[in-house]
Amino acid sequence: MKKRILIVGGVAGGASAAARLRRLSEEDEIIMFEKGPHASFSNCSLPYHLSGIIEDADKLVLMSPEKFKVQYNIDVRVNSEVISIDRENKEVQVRNYMKNEIYIEKYDKLILSPGAKPIVPKIEGIEKVNIFTIRNVVDIDKLNNFVKGLDIKDVTVIGGGFIGVETAENLREAGYKITLVEGSEQILRTFDYDMVQILHKEIYDNDVDLIVNDKVKAFDRNKVILESGREINTKAVVLAIGVTPEITLAKEAGLEIGKTGAIKVDRNYRTSDRDIYAIGDAIEVYNALTHDYFKLSLAGPALKQARAVADHINGIKGLNKGYIGSSAIKVFSLNAAATGLNENLIKASNIKINYDIVRLIANDKVGIIPDAAPMHFKLLYEVETGKVLGAQAIGRGDATKRIDIIATLIKMGGTIEDLQDLELSYAPPYSTAKDVVNYAGYIAGNISNGDFKQINVDKLRELVENNAFIVDVRERMEYENGHIKGTVNIPLSELRVRYKEIPKDKPVYLHCRTGQRSYNAVVALKNLGFDNVINITGSFLALSYYEYFNDKVLNREPIVTKYNFK
Amino acid sequence: MKKRILIVGGVAGGASAAARLRRLSEEDEIIMFEKGPHASFSNCSLPYHLSGIIEDADKLVLMSPEKFKVQYNIDVRVNSEVISIDRENKEVQVRNYMKNEIYIEKYDKLILSPGAKPIVPKIEGIEKVNIFTIRNVVDIDKLNNFVKGLDIKDVTVIGGGFIGVETAENLREAGYKITLVEGSEQILRTFDYDMVQILHKEIYDNDVDLIVNDKVKAFDRNKVILESGREINTKAVVLAIGVTPEITLAKEAGLEIGKTGAIKVDRNYRTSDRDIYAIGDAIEVYNALTHDYFKLSLAGPALKQARAVADHINGIKGLNKGYIGSSAIKVFSLNAAATGLNENLIKASNIKINYDIVRLIANDKVGIIPDAAPMHFKLLYEVETGKVLGAQAIGRGDATKRIDIIATLIKMGGTIEDLQDLELSYAPPYSTAKDVVNYAGYIAGNISNGDFKQINVDKLRELVENNAFIVDVRERMEYENGHIKGTVNIPLSELRVRYKEIPKDKPVYLHCRTGQRSYNAVVALKNLGFDNVINITGSFLALSYYEYFNDKVLNREPIVTKYNFK
Repeated sequence: MKKRILIVGGVAGGASAAARLRRLSEEDEIIMFEKGPHASFSNCSLPYHLSGIIEDADKLVLMSPEKFKVQYNIDVRVNSEVISIDRENKEVQVRNYMKNEIYIEKYDKLILSPGAKPIVPKIEGIEKVNIFTIRNVVDIDKLNNFVKGLDIKDVTVIGGGFIGVETAENLREAGYKITLVEGSEQILRTFDYDMVQILHKEIYDNDVDLIVNDKVKAFDRNKVILESGREINTKAVVLAIGVTPEITLAKEAGLEIGKTGAIKVDRNYRTSDRDIYAIGDAIEVYNALTHDYFKLSLAGPALKQARAVADHINGIKGLNKGYIGSSAIKVFSLNAAATGLNENLIKASNIKINYDIVRLIANDKVGIIPDAAPMHFKLLYEVETGKVLGAQAIGRGDATKRIDIIATLIKMGGTIEDLQDLELSYAPPYSTAKDVVNYAGYIAGNISNGDFKQINVDKLRELVENNAFIVDVRERMEYENGHIKGTVNIPLSELRVRYKEIPKDKPVYLHCRTGQRSYNAVVALKNLGFDNVINITGSFLALSYYEYFNDKVLNREPIVTKYNFK
Repeated sequence: MKKRILIVGGVAGGASAAARLRRLSEEDEIIMFEKGPHASFSNCSLPYHLSGIIEDADKLVLMSPEKFKVQYNIDVRVNSEVISIDRENKEVQVRNYMKNEIYIEKYDKLILSPGAKPIVPKIEGIEKVNIFTIRNVVDIDKLNNFVKGLDIKDVTVIGGGFIGVETAENLREAGYKITLVEGSEQILRTFDYDMVQILHKEIYDNDVDLIVNDKVKAFDRNKVILESGREINTKAVVLAIGVTPEITLAKEAGLEIGKTGAIKVDRNYRTSDRDIYAIGDAIEVYNALTHDYFKLSLAGPALKQARAVADHINGIKGLNKGYIGSSAIKVFSLNAAATGLNENLIKASNIKINYDIVRLIANDKVGIIPDAAPMHFKLLYEVETGKVLGAQAIGRGDATKRIDIIATLIKMGGTIEDLQDLELSYAPPYSTAKDVVNYAGYIAGNISNGDFKQINVDKLRELVENNAFIVDVRERMEYENGHIKGTVNIPLSELRVRYKEIPKDKPVYLHCRTGQRSYNAVVALKNLGFDNVINITGSFLALSYYEYFNDKVLNREPIVTKYNFK
């Protein structure tokens, strides 16, 4: 039977649903309404227009209404907002902004894909600055044209989430003087505090004035005033503190809203009305790891939901195992990605999960290949079951590969033993014969077997202040090129001759460059009868990254004689 | 109890086992014998010395015997070959090549990691050319020094496996005139014939004279004579036709040899003698997909086996789910990787498995990102269960990422539905919101639901010769820039107006650039009542790659008016 399907919202989710619906039925009538002037644009690519990587803003628009019509026989109506739903009569009211008229369309099935909108809080003096938000092609075009016309190139970005960081980076690459303000102690909460310091440093080193732990108190003419009292001169302000699901339409239609404030849907993305589906940033989804609902504003899940909805409308059964959340971001020369749970998320959620972490740094490819670089990696797993819970990777090399491997493993319910057992493709230009993810599995196995104890670099400052006994097992030359203040240097190569210099009556902390040699030293000492030896995971390299940014911005006395990032 | 453990072979497997053994016990005596002058070198990196990517041959050596001694208290004896095993008395005979003496060492446990050696067949006139093989640092140094001294830079590489291709590429990059001779119809059998054409083209386009389907008949002074009668002038010949496991020592000691000709081991890598283990290229391993033994000369598995053996000797239980085989290779500007089964392997094995394939090309990152490029992808899955069996990926972008995702999925027993459901990390510089691997899962789902029929590009020439009805649904401009001879151009954008031009009484084959638009056309026609419409998977882009190399070398009449590789 011929169906009439209306879709509200024409970006990722809506457009994808429309195309799939057409493939499943040639006869159904499919109408897609988009409030803005463009349907189907690459929203994730918007910031890249600011740096000129995507030079032509028109290229951001992937499909025109005309193309939808001729290629898929889909009726796309832009500048058309669905303003209300009459569920009883199964019809919607549409406002056409071009003709400035309101009309009614009937539906058999309705798909809501309205997205989320940037949060714009009421801040004192907000009318005194040039405020921008970024949601669509018009927004980015407007921002780009405005900043291009500036003689003083001071721009402030408020908010250190994905959009804020990408906007800051792309404007910086275009030569603007950027201040990035983040209210909490860190940007990008998909990374834990220890990992994100690497990104803080990268942003700082690229001459972005990164301010954390400070909020906007007020705006004044060409000025941002922070709660700390600090004032920032600025010609433009990009507000990117977050997004909120577009739920007005759904709420007014009496559809159930979930506890996260997003539209509630069932496993098949159906709302509380049997004939209305909802997908994308406007809904909340089930987190397979926390067993609770959460908001997941990502393009991949939106496309998956779009397909699932089109299938369900056409009687095709789908699979929905819940979500784990995987994401990636480029931050200047670094690639960063994360999947599943992290410590931030676990602490913020209600779930009681007994997890442990593995933090390591390994070469992303064979060390003698010229562009080999350290890959910083963090793994979370459940202590009782060994199940992998999440991971974060940051480096100049292929971080998304490592995270996608872990994302696949988590989705399949894999454990740290499975991680050890993976057979990954290897050649010297791509990785090492034992990849960093395999190493993470092995280390997790060692820890969970009780083979050794570890401590993360975020505890180092406290240890140093308390005069803990710390042994640096790097070679003498390395030690001289920068070390933690007050440590003893016993190179691994001298350990078996000099181990009697190490006390047995108190905890001994060992580190090297990345934690690999010190791990060998820790187990050697254990086997030599030392009961209380602890490996400093990540070691001097991770520590340098961990301390650097805060030392700089807090003007803090470093605990190292010299940082070393090699 | 203190153990005495001897290790035969000091490269990947041996060195790795030694280090793990030391971590597990400080008191055990560990002695490692290496026939050659270097222990622990990066054998996979050897070819990269020829191009100068790894300039200094010494860098290929990762650890010196001295470093093994001071860092791990491991006794490494280079230039020392174990020449016999006395299992009854648990001792080995060692020949020291430096002192030219033979001595005896006792063992509690013995680990064999002798590797595999290049096959050098008896070919007529072999003494008349400068023959080289590549196994270790000495070999590559010798080859490099020899070719550097040549005035006429003609070098022939025999054998299109990993080492042959990498050697040809690296010598070519260094400016040599290279002929690469492969006896079978294709190089690199980890890729199927349809996929490998992309690599054939890449090698051909980089001015390597690639000869397939031809074998060496004889050598003459500075000359290679092929079975076809063709003669190649050459100053040096690199023989890389394959390797054979080093089993002499094991065989003479009466250890069981498997049917593949490699050493037989159990799940814990123990030979038929309870106190003797064997690992690496010298053993055969169990293939979890074919349920049969095979040889797997790869570094990753060798390292895994090394750890497993060290663990087993120390009473730690391991996991062995069998092997699937994952590998990668760089071929000039292309990255290529494969995992699990391919059609070559299935045809060559005894297993009866009802599989189907998905062949697709998708952008490796968002199309508007400047360095986005096509990723060629092939997936094999079992028809009855949907279980993913294998995959191959080739492109300028991140092929190993896609293969590692599939390798992880296969190892975890994943299906095509699981593949659809994966949540991968996405940002425009890295991938697309729906990644090529997700697409592969969706296409597999469509095929297995019977939503459409497909044919691979390797059948196109036959179709064209038989005057099949082929519709090109690309836009007119694209058609004019090169198309399959004799096809009808009905752009997707005109299909719904012009579909009556298409006959209903015979099979109709549709293609576009990559198969995505033609898939939409196929389902549209199906929904319009056409029963026999077939999508040409990979479409014009895959076809161009498929035909190009053979057209060139066979001087064959192209079936396209012009190739298109964009």
